[in-house]
Amino acid sequence: MSTKRDAGSGTVVDGFGNSARPVESSAESPVVESPARRNFLRRGSTLAGGVIAGGASLAAAAPLAIPDTNQTFGKPIAEADYGVPSKFESNVRRRRTDVLKNRQNYSDWSMTPLADQHGIITPNGLIYERHHNGTPDIDPAKHRLVIHGMVREPLEFTMDDLLRYPSVSKFYFMECSGNGLTDWLKAASTTVQQTHGLLSCAQWTGIPVSWLFDETGLDPAAKWVMFEGADGAGHVRSVPLKKVLDDCLIVYAQNGEMLRPEQGYPVRLFVPGWEGNVSVKWLRRIKVGDEPWHFRSETARYTDPMPDGMWRQFSFEMECKSVITRPSGGMSIKPGMNEIQGFAWSGNGTIRAVDVTVDGGATWREARLEAPVLDKCLTRFRYAWDWKGGPATIASRAVDSTGYVQPTVADIAKARAIVGFVQHHNGVFPWSVAASGEVKNAIA
Amino acid sequence: MSTKRDAGSGTVVDGFGNSARPVESSAESPVVESPARRNFLRRGSTLAGGVIAGGASLAAAAPLAIPDTNQTFGKPIAEADYGVPSKFESNVRRRRTDVLKNRQNYSDWSMTPLADQHGIITPNGLIYERHHNGTPDIDPAKHRLVIHGMVREPLEFTMDDLLRYPSVSKFYFMECSGNGLTDWLKAASTTVQQTHGLLSCAQWTGIPVSWLFDETGLDPAAKWVMFEGADGAGHVRSVPLKKVLDDCLIVYAQNGEMLRPEQGYPVRLFVPGWEGNVSVKWLRRIKVGDEPWHFRSETARYTDPMPDGMWRQFSFEMECKSVITRPSGGMSIKPGMNEIQGFAWSGNGTIRAVDVTVDGGATWREARLEAPVLDKCLTRFRYAWDWKGGPATIASRAVDSTGYVQPTVADIAKARAIVGFVQHHNGVFPWSVAASGEVKNAIA
Repeated sequence: MSTKRDAGSGTVVDGFGNSARPVESSAESPVVESPARRNFLRRGSTLAGGVIAGGASLAAAAPLAIPDTNQTFGKPIAEADYGVPSKFESNVRRRRTDVLKNRQNYSDWSMTPLADQHGIITPNGLIYERHHNGTPDIDPAKHRLVIHGMVREPLEFTMDDLLRYPSVSKFYFMECSGNGLTDWLKAASTTVQQTHGLLSCAQWTGIPVSWLFDETGLDPAAKWVMFEGADGAGHVRSVPLKKVLDDCLIVYAQNGEMLRPEQGYPVRLFVPGWEGNVSVKWLRRIKVGDEPWHFRSETARYTDPMPDGMWRQFSFEMECKSVITRPSGGMSIKPGMNEIQGFAWSGNGTIRAVDVTVDGGATWREARLEAPVLDKCLTRFRYAWDWKGGPATIASRAVDSTGYVQPTVADIAKARAIVGFVQHHNGVFPWSVAASGEVKNAIA
Repeated sequence: MSTKRDAGSGTVVDGFGNSARPVESSAESPVVESPARRNFLRRGSTLAGGVIAGGASLAAAAPLAIPDTNQTFGKPIAEADYGVPSKFESNVRRRRTDVLKNRQNYSDWSMTPLADQHGIITPNGLIYERHHNGTPDIDPAKHRLVIHGMVREPLEFTMDDLLRYPSVSKFYFMECSGNGLTDWLKAASTTVQQTHGLLSCAQWTGIPVSWLFDETGLDPAAKWVMFEGADGAGHVRSVPLKKVLDDCLIVYAQNGEMLRPEQGYPVRLFVPGWEGNVSVKWLRRIKVGDEPWHFRSETARYTDPMPDGMWRQFSFEMECKSVITRPSGGMSIKPGMNEIQGFAWSGNGTIRAVDVTVDGGATWREARLEAPVLDKCLTRFRYAWDWKGGPATIASRAVDSTGYVQPTVADIAKARAIVGFVQHHNGVFPWSVAASGEVKNAIA
């Protein structure tokens, strides 16, 4: 599906620098974007009740309190250490769904706390999980990856073999096709962790699959590739050879260290921009063929109902999408200047622009995009909002480098049947702000 | 100091794509850099003993073994979880120095395992540590940041105040001025973790200090700024106001989550491109003045001896530097194709080029730089090396966007006195490869 962006949108100018054109390349922008930024603060500090932060004024002559921590020894450095978050951050955790809780949790998922994610990197401890039968505990010394089927020479690789290859490192988002499935037509979830938290972003390191096919050779009639995991579910998917040769990676590291067990340790497939479940984890087998295998995950699962009653297979691409993460459900804001922040991403390229509405869609203004803006990667947008204190509905709408505009749920409903917990929800997502400042899921 | 790059270097072309010009912008480059990359592998697989990886050939008819993990339940998802590395990665840890071990470890440091770092992001659990009196345990609800001195209005900020401001997120390296101090003239350390591991890289999120000065106002005569920590050492430094206004950040998050305790939780200064110790952690006080304070860390410590017997103060910038991380000390390689990998960085801009030698400096060839290449950020370089099996000495030499070329230790010794454990070692660093494949620190 594709929708058109209103030609008149994104051109309204206000006093807070919101009219700036978005960053369209990944060139660095200066930190201080004066004068718009400075006006933001100066204006804030002169508005009655409009100060967004600002601190408490100190009497110049008052002595400053010396904290206890300045007067005691700290914790010494450990001999061989791996750091963990402060105990005061114990609320920032991956969480299971509130809406569709399984009685068991072997085939289950947990979500990334997006409201607490600063920047575009998801820390490895908070990358969302989705498994069909839990996380296997794999010894890399014993693990093998086999490539066979329509190849010239079937080969078996140890992890040492794979680690001796040259590698590439790429920043990519990863999103589950089921992200948002509980909140299509009626608000079911409370927080952005619950509505959008099957989404993470990391720098992934590994080997293009095409390099391994250079070793095995390919039958000229080959068209599809099977990827199978070493987990208890034996999760397995068919991927078109064209995509595999284009940009798929055999990944063994994320954000600078070896994959976490729940992310496929010691090795996984990574399919940039496509639904997460095709990026098969704990990868043990690659088979080359000339047609898809039509696995359970391609017939009974991960399919989209159409208006004519048929179900569409192989809806791989995660289309352009965005969401406001601050403020978002469960938060409370104060009148005055508030920076609206969120993420935009597209499985089909880079983010070209994000528009924000603070009046339920009546008007849209262009947000600033923060560099670097990378292909198939989370992009952070920022929008300065002077909230006067009345009820408001806020939402974001992203446009990608193909010109595709993030649709509304009503747009999507014209092309697909929205019945039950369907996949691939990339609709515009609203939050309501009450006069009290309370923020809630506004899907209705 | 500045040295000139040999005009003839970087122009030699070999068969493995090493002649490619480096990426000079942060634009994305395609994953598969054929045909040079494919030639790398094809050539590898036809050389006797020259296969860099390649796997074992499988008899097509042999049944594949099914691993135990395909036949058992995995570990289910936990209710509120924060992930940790696989138990099989327990060797990848921050480590204290082998050479200068303190009897106590309150004023101490631990190093990042750079040989095991994939990509440019250092995971939060492995970012190097340097404290003057251990890590304080600070409750963010009680923490206060004060700005006073030559300001119009002194202000006190809570963490809630700071978190309500707009924020910026930037990828920056961080390096201790003492990185490499044990290995100037004679090999003392074994691994790259020990020689260069006071180096990390993250996406840092926070507020430009200039925005807070917009709130307090500045006396027109102000020229220097004091930053003081809430740790047991009361670590404190003077920073020129010009740099503070240019790009310094009040940082509260790293790689997507709140700072780790050992990185300054809940808030620190971050001074991009400058020696790590000025990025004062556990920040509690900012005082504006008209001259530096000449603290102990500016007289007895963090100074550089000069050839005339004087000591230079305020050597803030971490100048352009690089190091090969694979292969590096303690590793062992096999004859055939090996990808040389390493990091380059500069406190004065972006990396323009990296040259690699595999013959002890007789000839240099240009390495490939991996996108994105960002300002004051680690940049990964890659160089395809067909090692014939004889003894070799390998090293890298970086050039930054100002044209500055990473010097040799001999170059540095012309400008500064290399006596004892001096700071700011950005010299070219060699590794020796023995005929056996064993890699060692080759400083001599």
